[in-house]
Amino acid sequence: MAPRQKLRYLFILYFLFSILIIAGCNKKSEESLPNIIIIFADDLGYGDLGTYGATDFSTPHLDQMATEGMRFTNFYSAQAVCSASRAGLLTGCYPNRIGISGALMPWSTTGLHENELTIAELLKNNGYSTGIVGKWHLGWQEQFLPLQHGFDAYFGLPYSNDMWPVDYDGNPVTEQSSKPWKARYPKLPLIENNKIVDTIQNLDDQAQLTTRYTTYAVDFINQHKNDPFFLYFAHTMPHVPLGVSEKFKGKSDQGMLGDVIMEIDWSVGQIFEALKNTGQENNTLVIFTSDNGPWLNYGNHAGSTGGLREGKGTSWEGGQREPCIMWWPGNIPSGKICNKLSSTIDLLPTIASITKAKLPDNKIDGVNILPLLQGIENSNPRDHFYFYYRKNSLEGVRKGVWKLVLPHKFRSYESVLPGNDGFPGPYATGTIDTALYNLARDPGERYDVKDQYPEVVNELFQLVETAREDLGDELTEQTGKNIRPAGKIDLID
Amino acid sequence: MAPRQKLRYLFILYFLFSILIIAGCNKKSEESLPNIIIIFADDLGYGDLGTYGATDFSTPHLDQMATEGMRFTNFYSAQAVCSASRAGLLTGCYPNRIGISGALMPWSTTGLHENELTIAELLKNNGYSTGIVGKWHLGWQEQFLPLQHGFDAYFGLPYSNDMWPVDYDGNPVTEQSSKPWKARYPKLPLIENNKIVDTIQNLDDQAQLTTRYTTYAVDFINQHKNDPFFLYFAHTMPHVPLGVSEKFKGKSDQGMLGDVIMEIDWSVGQIFEALKNTGQENNTLVIFTSDNGPWLNYGNHAGSTGGLREGKGTSWEGGQREPCIMWWPGNIPSGKICNKLSSTIDLLPTIASITKAKLPDNKIDGVNILPLLQGIENSNPRDHFYFYYRKNSLEGVRKGVWKLVLPHKFRSYESVLPGNDGFPGPYATGTIDTALYNLARDPGERYDVKDQYPEVVNELFQLVETAREDLGDELTEQTGKNIRPAGKIDLID
Repeated sequence: MAPRQKLRYLFILYFLFSILIIAGCNKKSEESLPNIIIIFADDLGYGDLGTYGATDFSTPHLDQMATEGMRFTNFYSAQAVCSASRAGLLTGCYPNRIGISGALMPWSTTGLHENELTIAELLKNNGYSTGIVGKWHLGWQEQFLPLQHGFDAYFGLPYSNDMWPVDYDGNPVTEQSSKPWKARYPKLPLIENNKIVDTIQNLDDQAQLTTRYTTYAVDFINQHKNDPFFLYFAHTMPHVPLGVSEKFKGKSDQGMLGDVIMEIDWSVGQIFEALKNTGQENNTLVIFTSDNGPWLNYGNHAGSTGGLREGKGTSWEGGQREPCIMWWPGNIPSGKICNKLSSTIDLLPTIASITKAKLPDNKIDGVNILPLLQGIENSNPRDHFYFYYRKNSLEGVRKGVWKLVLPHKFRSYESVLPGNDGFPGPYATGTIDTALYNLARDPGERYDVKDQYPEVVNELFQLVETAREDLGDELTEQTGKNIRPAGKIDLID
Repeated sequence: MAPRQKLRYLFILYFLFSILIIAGCNKKSEESLPNIIIIFADDLGYGDLGTYGATDFSTPHLDQMATEGMRFTNFYSAQAVCSASRAGLLTGCYPNRIGISGALMPWSTTGLHENELTIAELLKNNGYSTGIVGKWHLGWQEQFLPLQHGFDAYFGLPYSNDMWPVDYDGNPVTEQSSKPWKARYPKLPLIENNKIVDTIQNLDDQAQLTTRYTTYAVDFINQHKNDPFFLYFAHTMPHVPLGVSEKFKGKSDQGMLGDVIMEIDWSVGQIFEALKNTGQENNTLVIFTSDNGPWLNYGNHAGSTGGLREGKGTSWEGGQREPCIMWWPGNIPSGKICNKLSSTIDLLPTIASITKAKLPDNKIDGVNILPLLQGIENSNPRDHFYFYYRKNSLEGVRKGVWKLVLPHKFRSYESVLPGNDGFPGPYATGTIDTALYNLARDPGERYDVKDQYPEVVNELFQLVETAREDLGDELTEQTGKNIRPAGKIDLID
């Protein structure tokens, strides 16, 4: 063979080999399990990101995530308060189905039941490495902690950052404090895996939390670049008491609240940076949302519902409708809006579908919303959604654009002045009779149109009856035939 | 020279020549004046696009425009009613400065004064071809029509599409109709340049308007591919009576209103298609916004404020805060959110700055917001904004996140049932005392915090005094020293 011809053959061989290599790589990447990251903010309102209309501060990384991913506009947390919301997120159940309500306290003796399957367990069973950083709030006793619920690694607070013996001004609570009963709180522990490794003693310690969490999260991503992982990043912020590190102090034009959210946005940027640096940016589904709406009676230390009614601790839209952005290059179309009904309780079955994992044996309430993520036109996997609050009060149901609100009393932030600079204002008590809102035309729940659409009211009351039978309703003294108990601590004899 | 060497030289020559050509082209494109298109919807609410949270219909072209361009979240129309809003948009003035208020009627004898410089005149003076398609509403008599205000070409309605002798059900008004006085309206004319070329006689005619306008607009773009042009596309829809062509009937899950907005979105897509087909997509600034919020008492034929308070015909946020998307590849960064205070009255000075055109000699109120479009950090060109309504009533002022609302009566849509299927419901009359809202935390204007921020109230009252002196306030019987009269028709002797 002449040298020239030889060279030509070599070149053809090289070319074919390259194609095989490239094809092989693509095959691997298609078949390999995607990493999954859920970033969960605390008390962040529907209006608290730039891309959802926030004013006076910017969230460039989250805005960019929305530009490259999908932004949800009718996405609900499972319930408008901390522990309940997190129980729903991790198990795919209405929290009252599994006996979790309200916010667990340091003196609570209950937690997430060992029989409930979490997203972490589901993925761990499927070969994932699983980590959680941040706020847990599903039982602080060891038997309830994340490592006993499917997580390999944990670093964070066991409950809310205001459950500490410190006054609103940052000073230790004394008998002279505005709320002397807060002395009852133990020191606020920071836990790694199953052990207390530090305590959060003052506002300066709070100010480091976002940074410390972020460092841990980035390390976790770096450590798992070769195996599929699930990371649940549950921020403590912007829950009061607000804390922000020096690098974000004064960065926003909206004081501390804006600074804090800007730091969360920075943290999101760090996560994306870590994904990029480890070459995982094309094989990771990232979901950002929050546990419930803003705690409005904290005034300038609370976020914004973007115009929705009321806030945290209510089943009005301001309490449960949340920003939600999902990002997964090549799988979720970029820059799209999803205005279909969906919820945190849908994440477990959706993730199960994506990873082909087995669903829990127990009954769950979530539905697989993967068709929404894929932008499949006319898909509408969630038919309706129940608004439960308190221990087990059914306060409303939504189907399509219609929300039927049932008669109940609620915490109201209207007509009272909020607090300021970390101190809370009072609540008022609101009352509402049966009301019907068209959330397409009236997301602010201002215009009761029940007299105009009696047939819609009837249809939604049928769903109410189904829920009362299945899940119960303490307002009508129905217990529900399919609810399960929360976990109880094992008392030592 | 050997043939091979000759070929090599030729190749080098060709290469250098190509570089020169490419450099030359780039130079031309940088220096040439950009085309400017303003697409102006009618009665579209803040919540009426997918990217602003619309539910039950989708607006993919506008969402894509936002993904590639900039979405504004604190953008106001000049006033919450048709003629006034359009006067402000085209002249860069608060409409009361130039004597325009409310909605001009077919029996009005006033219009935009010939001394006022419009964006069209400003650009025409600068060498632009200028066209308007759609609703004018700044005086229907020939002396007031677009061709007398700087436009080369016009096709559309001289005023609102409900100013016609047709009942809400689409039948001609008779003495037996619900509103027999509507018989006073002349036939609704469709005008080309200065001549009536057709009349809109029934709902079927209304249904063709978006299509006819779009055809005209696309033709205009095609005709001006070689010269800089300004196109003002003022949709008649989604103003009642709603009309939608066959191709969009039933396309949304929100009835006619959703269908109509989807057709507007389609029309926007046609504009982009035309720009692409004529190679102008990289040299055109496209702005999309609307004249005022939704006319809520039309119920299922009205849009959504996305949770903002009240609607069209009020100075509450629901009346004046509008969706606004600006798109200009290479000049406006893509996928960014602008949450700074800005308004339609800022478009004239901004366009003047972009095109290096001379500003009007008359005093105007708009400011150059080009730094916002360019995404320049910390720029904040607009200090404050006045909310005027009726003939000349100062009802509020916004500075930064603060909105001071002055005592006034207003059209209220709350507490009364809206109409249905094209028929209006009643209004109630609301009253408000002085109130202060923090629009960053409370865009829904639900929480009056004036007692908490007296120093802010004082600061905003100083701006109120300045406005009353400059522009007047009929609520305090001040006429204003710098207002100018509207145009009056020349009566023939």
